[in-house]
Amino acid sequence: MRLKLLLAYAGGRYSGWQIQEKPNPPRTIQGELENALRILAGVPVRAHGSGRTDAGVHAHGQVAHCDVPDGKAGLNWRKSLNALLPDDIRVLDAASAPLTFHARNDAVSKTYVYQFWQERAFVPPHLAPYVWCCGSLGVQYMRAALPHLLGEHDFAGLQNAGTDIRGTRRTLLFAEVAAMQPCEYYPPHLPLLRLTVSADGFLKQMVRNMAGLLAACGCQKIAPNDVPGLLAARDRKAVRAATAPASGLSLVKVEYAGAQTI
Amino acid sequence: MRLKLLLAYAGGRYSGWQIQEKPNPPRTIQGELENALRILAGVPVRAHGSGRTDAGVHAHGQVAHCDVPDGKAGLNWRKSLNALLPDDIRVLDAASAPLTFHARNDAVSKTYVYQFWQERAFVPPHLAPYVWCCGSLGVQYMRAALPHLLGEHDFAGLQNAGTDIRGTRRTLLFAEVAAMQPCEYYPPHLPLLRLTVSADGFLKQMVRNMAGLLAACGCQKIAPNDVPGLLAARDRKAVRAATAPASGLSLVKVEYAGAQTI
Repeated sequence: MRLKLLLAYAGGRYSGWQIQEKPNPPRTIQGELENALRILAGVPVRAHGSGRTDAGVHAHGQVAHCDVPDGKAGLNWRKSLNALLPDDIRVLDAASAPLTFHARNDAVSKTYVYQFWQERAFVPPHLAPYVWCCGSLGVQYMRAALPHLLGEHDFAGLQNAGTDIRGTRRTLLFAEVAAMQPCEYYPPHLPLLRLTVSADGFLKQMVRNMAGLLAACGCQKIAPNDVPGLLAARDRKAVRAATAPASGLSLVKVEYAGAQTI
Repeated sequence: MRLKLLLAYAGGRYSGWQIQEKPNPPRTIQGELENALRILAGVPVRAHGSGRTDAGVHAHGQVAHCDVPDGKAGLNWRKSLNALLPDDIRVLDAASAPLTFHARNDAVSKTYVYQFWQERAFVPPHLAPYVWCCGSLGVQYMRAALPHLLGEHDFAGLQNAGTDIRGTRRTLLFAEVAAMQPCEYYPPHLPLLRLTVSADGFLKQMVRNMAGLLAACGCQKIAPNDVPGLLAARDRKAVRAATAPASGLSLVKVEYAGAQTI
């Protein structure tokens, strides 16, 4: 039987989603998950994620599928997996899925959130693992850049090296920068800025490069009106903005057509 | 000169506030802070907290004072301490204070928060270190118990053993249970319950015992109307409710008369 898993993880302790087949492999989300699945299934089980999150990236709604023996259909997979997994990886839902369901191929859109903490003087300890401590940003400039990113574009300029994907056109379906007040206990602080982006797919480190570009707009290193030209150059180096750190990024939702959505 | 420090910490990795003078001492908040202070001051510095938080307890607003050489008055203490401290201990503010200021003796009230996560099936990884995963609670019963705790009482029945404090009368100034929706990304979940309590002082593990008592009310093991009788017994054993785990507890505010408030 095929299982569809909805997963959350705090990525800080992990070398990303993808298992690394080598001696003394680093800790990965897929590795921990497959380890727990193997114990429960009694046989090796391959877990297929909707995509590979980078080292240090978090998830509130990663989706994966895997095949387990039919004889184990009676198992409460959510409970059993959570009993075996480390606390920073949680199975939010585990449901049987059609044998044709594929977590990566069937995904129609994904949503990521990137969190910018604007106070350099302090970061609340409970937020520190989930933000980029980037200093004060002009949210109006970040917002002015968003319309230039929305819609279908060639996002090659926001893709980092080290991938063999050929097509670099993607459609950005939604983009928003919201100002949040997450910590009522803390001394007066600038709001946390939360970038939310949805697309039919993302290139390698595209959200982190977009976050870096928007932060550069926010501190007026790049003018929002220059964004179309930077994208058109299709050259990562032309975008004079660093890749934002992994800590701020979370995969929050993967959507599937119709009933495939968990 | 005397410094008044406003501190936040994630207590999960620490054996509480208080330094332990023994071989191979465990990691403590005070120990880490004094280590950083000694490096900056060039001499040993004793840090006095407003109170000792237990092992695993967090703080969003602990206050401490310490004396440092007058010659170091020009130092940016907040920035310098944060550069030396681990990420899970942060100095939110560092200000010079009158030499008479005493973080413990001058405190007129303290406020703690205790967080109950009601879903047993999953806890979001980023919340897990800061909640008690206690299952579903009837918030109306918890709220019905609060008026019986408010005001001046002998709280001996909510004090754990191992303290030499004699007087056990305290005045609970504020008590509230709020229902929060902290995780918009997660599958439908019961609200996080946040207990907030302020008092002129707290006995050893009093907030955790109060949280345990309220949880027992919330799952109808103890009737709210029985609370006055349980308190009157002045006997920890008479309160048939466990001490709630440290993870859910945070010290959020220490108040001082007049200008002494940071």
